Amino acid sequence: MEAGRERHDDVEHGSLVTPSAEFPPLSPPERVALGRIGERWRAPRDGDLPADPTLVRSDRRPVPTRFGRLAPFEMFTVEKPDELVATERANLPGSRLGRASTRLRRALFGPPLSSAAVLYERMRKVIALPVLSSDLLSSVAYGPEAMLTVLVLAGTGALGVSLPLAAVLVVLMVAVGASYRQTIQAYPHGAGSYVVAGDNLGSLAGLAAAAGLMVDYVLTVSVSVAAGVNAVTSALPGFAAATVPLGVLVIAVLLAANLRGVRTAGNIFVLPTYAFVVAVLALLVVGYARAAGRGFAPVPPPELPAAEGLGLLLVLRAFSSGAVSMTGIEAVSNAVPAFRPPEWRNARATLGWMVFLLVLLFAGLTGLIRLEGLAPVPGETMLSQLGRVTFPTGPWYPLLQVATTLILLLAANTAFNGFPRLLFFMARAGHAPRRFLHMGDRLAFSNGMAALAVGAGVVFVAFGGHTQSLIPLYAVGVFLAFTLSQAGMVVHWRRHRGRGWRRRLAVNAVGATLSGLVLLTAAVSKFTEGAWVVVVAVPLLVLLFLRIHRHYATLNRALALHPPATAPPGPAGSAEGEELPQEVRHLVVVPVARLNRASLRALAYAASLGQPTLAVHIAPEESEADRFREQWRAWGDHLRLETIVSPYRAVIGPLAHYLEALHTTRPELTLTVIVPEVVLRRRWHRPLHSRTEQRLRAALRALPGVVVTSVPVHPAE
Amino acid sequence: MEAGRERHDDVEHGSLVTPSAEFPPLSPPERVALGRIGERWRAPRDGDLPADPTLVRSDRRPVPTRFGRLAPFEMFTVEKPDELVATERANLPGSRLGRASTRLRRALFGPPLSSAAVLYERMRKVIALPVLSSDLLSSVAYGPEAMLTVLVLAGTGALGVSLPLAAVLVVLMVAVGASYRQTIQAYPHGAGSYVVAGDNLGSLAGLAAAAGLMVDYVLTVSVSVAAGVNAVTSALPGFAAATVPLGVLVIAVLLAANLRGVRTAGNIFVLPTYAFVVAVLALLVVGYARAAGRGFAPVPPPELPAAEGLGLLLVLRAFSSGAVSMTGIEAVSNAVPAFRPPEWRNARATLGWMVFLLVLLFAGLTGLIRLEGLAPVPGETMLSQLGRVTFPTGPWYPLLQVATTLILLLAANTAFNGFPRLLFFMARAGHAPRRFLHMGDRLAFSNGMAALAVGAGVVFVAFGGHTQSLIPLYAVGVFLAFTLSQAGMVVHWRRHRGRGWRRRLAVNAVGATLSGLVLLTAAVSKFTEGAWVVVVAVPLLVLLFLRIHRHYATLNRALALHPPATAPPGPAGSAEGEELPQEVRHLVVVPVARLNRASLRALAYAASLGQPTLAVHIAPEESEADRFREQWRAWGDHLRLETIVSPYRAVIGPLAHYLEALHTTRPELTLTVIVPEVVLRRRWHRPLHSRTEQRLRAALRALPGVVVTSVPVHPAE
Repeated sequence: MEAGRERHDDVEHGSLVTPSAEFPPLSPPERVALGRIGERWRAPRDGDLPADPTLVRSDRRPVPTRFGRLAPFEMFTVEKPDELVATERANLPGSRLGRASTRLRRALFGPPLSSAAVLYERMRKVIALPVLSSDLLSSVAYGPEAMLTVLVLAGTGALGVSLPLAAVLVVLMVAVGASYRQTIQAYPHGAGSYVVAGDNLGSLAGLAAAAGLMVDYVLTVSVSVAAGVNAVTSALPGFAAATVPLGVLVIAVLLAANLRGVRTAGNIFVLPTYAFVVAVLALLVVGYARAAGRGFAPVPPPELPAAEGLGLLLVLRAFSSGAVSMTGIEAVSNAVPAFRPPEWRNARATLGWMVFLLVLLFAGLTGLIRLEGLAPVPGETMLSQLGRVTFPTGPWYPLLQVATTLILLLAANTAFNGFPRLLFFMARAGHAPRRFLHMGDRLAFSNGMAALAVGAGVVFVAFGGHTQSLIPLYAVGVFLAFTLSQAGMVVHWRRHRGRGWRRRLAVNAVGATLSGLVLLTAAVSKFTEGAWVVVVAVPLLVLLFLRIHRHYATLNRALALHPPATAPPGPAGSAEGEELPQEVRHLVVVPVARLNRASLRALAYAASLGQPTLAVHIAPEESEADRFREQWRAWGDHLRLETIVSPYRAVIGPLAHYLEALHTTRPELTLTVIVPEVVLRRRWHRPLHSRTEQRLRAALRALPGVVVTSVPVHPAE
Repeated sequence: MEAGRERHDDVEHGSLVTPSAEFPPLSPPERVALGRIGERWRAPRDGDLPADPTLVRSDRRPVPTRFGRLAPFEMFTVEKPDELVATERANLPGSRLGRASTRLRRALFGPPLSSAAVLYERMRKVIALPVLSSDLLSSVAYGPEAMLTVLVLAGTGALGVSLPLAAVLVVLMVAVGASYRQTIQAYPHGAGSYVVAGDNLGSLAGLAAAAGLMVDYVLTVSVSVAAGVNAVTSALPGFAAATVPLGVLVIAVLLAANLRGVRTAGNIFVLPTYAFVVAVLALLVVGYARAAGRGFAPVPPPELPAAEGLGLLLVLRAFSSGAVSMTGIEAVSNAVPAFRPPEWRNARATLGWMVFLLVLLFAGLTGLIRLEGLAPVPGETMLSQLGRVTFPTGPWYPLLQVATTLILLLAANTAFNGFPRLLFFMARAGHAPRRFLHMGDRLAFSNGMAALAVGAGVVFVAFGGHTQSLIPLYAVGVFLAFTLSQAGMVVHWRRHRGRGWRRRLAVNAVGATLSGLVLLTAAVSKFTEGAWVVVVAVPLLVLLFLRIHRHYATLNRALALHPPATAPPGPAGSAEGEELPQEVRHLVVVPVARLNRASLRALAYAASLGQPTLAVHIAPEESEADRFREQWRAWGDHLRLETIVSPYRAVIGPLAHYLEALHTTRPELTLTVIVPEVVLRRRWHRPLHSRTEQRLRAALRALPGVVVTSVPVHPAE
């Protein structure tokens, strides 16, 4: 039944992101149950409320109030009968501190956006290409270097292995690209790995893909920010010492920009991607022209000592490090619904261009690095080295570095879109906390963004902002998601045997196999270098998702509506069964410590409910009990008083046990405990009071059938 | 009227320490008001409760319950009709964690003690002397050394000044002792400085004396523990490095012992005091005999260079340092009611003996140190040096050190009695937080003891457990209390001109003048050495006491009962006036997010109260609002539903503002907001839920006339 509801949701919502997801609709059997419950409900519909709920027929002039500072009526507009619409000001909290923090937030992140402003904007290909490809193309800024950093461990001679490795990687890129092209066609409503793997391989595979993707998103931010900061410090080595604070600042700015809702200004982001592509292409043209001038004779690289031999393991490590150049290839498939119709066709064409550019830049850069005889050095990225060699003078080198920095930040930024969306879909299916369904007042998934920023910040600081140390963690999560997604497609084609399904299955199978090999290679060869973190984290995350899902499922089952006849038999005569108003039997209990205006108000409130009422006094000594009873008689003995002498001077414990004993004698009664609560305006006054009300509430939480009511008293100060 | 109540309390309770102090009785005008309010109260006394509050007429078998693990009936005994007595087990909290921590506490501190066990034990003089004098007599373990430590700064020659200074101090001791003898006679119910100064010089002087005493108590613990640890490290220098952890451990052990209620075993403490007196007397006898053997020829002290000249300031500093030997002289006057009758006469005699012993030990030690030519050295106390010189062999030296350590710990222990008692009396008068009125389950003022231990621990650690650095802080607080107390006595004699009042006034005036001079000397001459801390802290403490008192007074005024006719006019038609049940008008509001068993239970509870009821739904989008209204109709539209579209997706803000708007239209209505609360059993599940109930409660706290009711739902898990 749980699975049924999920599927139902999926059908209804698909990949649509909507604020209403926080309020899921009732399932059809629940609707039926609701009607059946309603039939048995005996409560006269009260047509004559003492106040007008639509707030329109007020004969009082609106006055500023202490709580809202503004006349509260102005916070609502009435557009239909029975419906008010809250204005922007109604979001302001009541406390002074809360209002100040809201104002600060609005100054930073902008005024709130109405739900009606949810963007369903569609992207043209010329816009989609740069927006979606920043993550993928920016990877070439650190991918070739990641490969060479491993190879150089075996000495200068080993650098030559980079060319055949690059060739294999190009094959991999084309294969995975082709595989994703098919995924886009098959899942035109959005083809994220979580959906595709979950749909075809089962929930566990979907969760594993999601865990891989989440790790991937966190690392995308860390790695891109680290590489971006490195691009800056390569050009300006003076800033190298400030790498960590600089990176944290960048992550904070990215978070703030995204909380503000940067998406709306998405078109600005077209520029860095094109600038980067143009800059790198210029680099390649000038570089190869220079090489052609000397007959493509490679410059001999500097002689470097070998730290280890050129074994298979080293080559595999270099290969899987180079494979991080492919991170971000899945971006298009997640975003299919954002394209103009025909969505899948435009998305597929965009993906084709992206892969073409990737192969061009990756292969071109790897070859040129080899021709120029460059080797990794600490303190400067290889792209920066290449830029300095190729553009010894003129503005081209700084332009290259600026474009690199910008596209890397843009790549980090894409994670701020992807990660919260992933959490949204997971939360909708009950695999992530529900708070990730909530859209903040800027229509952004602020909780998800904050979680990403915190995660990425922690990783960045833990690794000291060192790009090449982060790379070993990176590949595992990415290729796990790739593998599962494409393996899912294989199953998909076997199930839906459309035209040419065998060929399609073969393409996806090749993609899945190659990705799986990279995954294995990365996990094994870089296990000790950091990949173990991911190998451990992914199963733990999956376990967490499963536990979360189980909790929500249990809770949904417990709270689901059943027709009265078929209600499962609760504890016999329990006060918490599926209740009808005519079946609720009350006993009101008022704990009274002393007689003052606060307790008399609580007693008056209790008596005014017209239900059987009992007052309870806890006395530390017999003599005090006598004195209190005497006062009670002086008052007029209007309510039944029960005195409990607590010779050990505890108040909460005996009271809770007394209520439990009452509940045990008559479990069908609903006990309403009415506690006066003196509301203190100043925070520093709170330690002067014993907060009995809060402690009692906490002690009674576990008791079934006990309702706690606080009657506030606001002393004039 | 506030002052009137205090005086009334004082007359009724005097210096009696009773658990009932947490529940002060009504003042006579409040009692009259209570009767008048009761006359107008219209609520039929409900004789027929659906459950028996005395828990005796139950026809159900007691069953173990989830909450209490024990049958709840066994937690109460019925001794009179309408009165239950909670057994020890009723104090156990409901949660598993709470029960475990209670068990641990009981294992450490013993089972709870009944209020009936409050000790009114009276002390014989032979017991009272050692118990009360430990603080005073232990001071000679560090007092002479404190004086010499200052003098030696002016070189070896200055050490000779110690003899005339000691003579002046002896005069001071006798004068202050005589002064306190008179105080005891005049205040036979307890003559603490706080009471005497407050009674005669006004509340401010009483608070200043209390602040001085509080500083004194904290420093007594720090200094005594430091000196005790020094006595150990003098004999066993290997432990010198562990001074700070050793001292903190000792403070923790003292706290634990006192929380356990060490007082009951008070007679054990007779031993260390007598042992110390005997050991020091033996030291003096043997020492002076040795000196007599060489014709009282003083041994020349070691040649030490002078760091500064022997100016007046230095002499004054030495004098006020030596005056710390008098700390603890006020102990008897605080404890007069603990003596056997005639209390004041026995107390006075005890004080006489104490002062005699003090003068004997102090003068004897100072003289002997001079004769033996000893000078302060780091790493060994002077008492230890003297012991080594006097008892070169045999068990006497270790015995002296053990007795010194024990009496110092005993002195620290007296502060654990005095400090919480002082806070109790201050809290009873509303000058300290009320929690200091509460007696823990061991009948000890656990809150006050914990506060003392924390304060003393912080001071001890901050000064690295170095006795002589703490001395400059010590004198100011002590002599402030002495001066105010004796100045109060001067005023007392002028008011109550009994027989021989002139002579008595003169004695107290001399005591007050001398103490005042020491106070001034200490504050000025040691200001830069640390006395400034106390000079700053005392006024701040007084200010704090006054602010606390103002808060309680305001609150008491606001909550005091007034006869209905004379009730101060509150906000016109306010829902929080002095209410009578027949005047309470209700509107019940149920916020509903979605329809499930929890919200239906809240709706049923609301409807069953039989008051006008309104349901409110907050929708993030127009479409969701329509969908919810449609469900509401499917249910049967039993209650009026108001929908609020919150286009900015906030829930708490619009709901709070809506309720405020309702309250503004009809301020005389009591709005009861009924919120379902899903009770989660596991703590880690809490982050999975948005805790709307708690956030709503917090947002509505500030609104007058809004009652919040949580209807708990316990999903079966």
